Amino acid sequence: MNLLLLYPEDFITATRARVTGRRLDEVNRIGSRELRVGVLDGRTGTAAVVAPGELEVTLDSDPPPPLPLTLVLALPRPKVLNRTIAAATSMGIKNIFLLNAWRVEKSYWKSPKLLHIRDQAVLGLEQARDTVMPRIELRRFFRKFVEDELPAIALGSLPLVAHPGAPSECPRNVQEAVTLAIGPEGGFIAEEIASFERIGFRPVHLGPRILRVETAVAALVGRLF
Amino acid sequence: MNLLLLYPEDFITATRARVTGRRLDEVNRIGSRELRVGVLDGRTGTAAVVAPGELEVTLDSDPPPPLPLTLVLALPRPKVLNRTIAAATSMGIKNIFLLNAWRVEKSYWKSPKLLHIRDQAVLGLEQARDTVMPRIELRRFFRKFVEDELPAIALGSLPLVAHPGAPSECPRNVQEAVTLAIGPEGGFIAEEIASFERIGFRPVHLGPRILRVETAVAALVGRLF
Repeated sequence: MNLLLLYPEDFITATRARVTGRRLDEVNRIGSRELRVGVLDGRTGTAAVVAPGELEVTLDSDPPPPLPLTLVLALPRPKVLNRTIAAATSMGIKNIFLLNAWRVEKSYWKSPKLLHIRDQAVLGLEQARDTVMPRIELRRFFRKFVEDELPAIALGSLPLVAHPGAPSECPRNVQEAVTLAIGPEGGFIAEEIASFERIGFRPVHLGPRILRVETAVAALVGRLF
Repeated sequence: MNLLLLYPEDFITATRARVTGRRLDEVNRIGSRELRVGVLDGRTGTAAVVAPGELEVTLDSDPPPPLPLTLVLALPRPKVLNRTIAAATSMGIKNIFLLNAWRVEKSYWKSPKLLHIRDQAVLGLEQARDTVMPRIELRRFFRKFVEDELPAIALGSLPLVAHPGAPSECPRNVQEAVTLAIGPEGGFIAEEIASFERIGFRPVHLGPRILRVETAVAALVGRLF
């Protein structure tokens, strides 16, 4: 981990924090060296180990800026979900909606991995030395979400839906916020693409290759921003 | 898998192939539907199941074009290596050098995962409906490789080394081939960056966030091409 994430409840004084579990293991592994730390949804800085598991913390920097991207992602299969959440969070995405779609298998919604999304986001924050937890929400009803909720979410942003075979390619280096929808394995069906188009989303492609969702998210972010 | 990769030795006649093992499982899973297939380093097309594990093959398309990128990658930790090779291959990278560096742990070179690199490349090809196996080579001696071999490899391409904190940012949408070096966790050390610079490589950054190598590769590819 590139940053040890502290929670307000870890602090026993204004500048002293106590960690246990996985984070204590990490502190012990690093030994007496200075640690990079950050406080959840707050500032980052360094810490010195002053007693076993006890850190004297100096916060002097802001976390890296967020990415102006809202991600609407058809719920991936469970083993892909974890990696995708961690990767998306590491890139600074702060708003993620996990959406049902025709080609999302119903069993994915019952995966116990859905309960551990937040842990994956923490791994992404630690990777990127960020502290600001993304908002990750589940939406089981495609049409209701796209028709009733998504127009307001996408308001004021460039609305794109990644769709292999779309006539136009994904724009580059945009200077505005983006709302980006990415389909399941096999893609959104034609009716779903039509739903996105009706609320102003433009279908765009990323070339002739079919990429895994976590690879596609990273390639799209690299291209857009 | 989005494409079933066939090998010349699978063919029992000019158009008929027989598969076993993992690929037979996939054929059985798909049932009687038409399969997308490709021949290693050859064309792609479709196949119909004509007997258990036996396919009648029609090849009518070329694989997607390769990416004009040579990747020089400090050997990642074993569990990251697999994902990175599969992702890089899915994006169309055809030349990968896995390189030693100061911050590459020696134990990584003894990982049994190194023996399965080719399997990971096959997964990447199947994902992206490609057939052209990348050339993946191991280089245990950083200095010897960079000084004696890399200048010829990078000749005629834009030579870049990803380096967090570099003064210039990674260029976008380049119209030429690129040779891109990416360091280990913690980055290349200053002496290694100096070695790259001496042979003309320009250090470039990808923003303030530290990304996992497979995320960084995808984001850099999305940005460069």
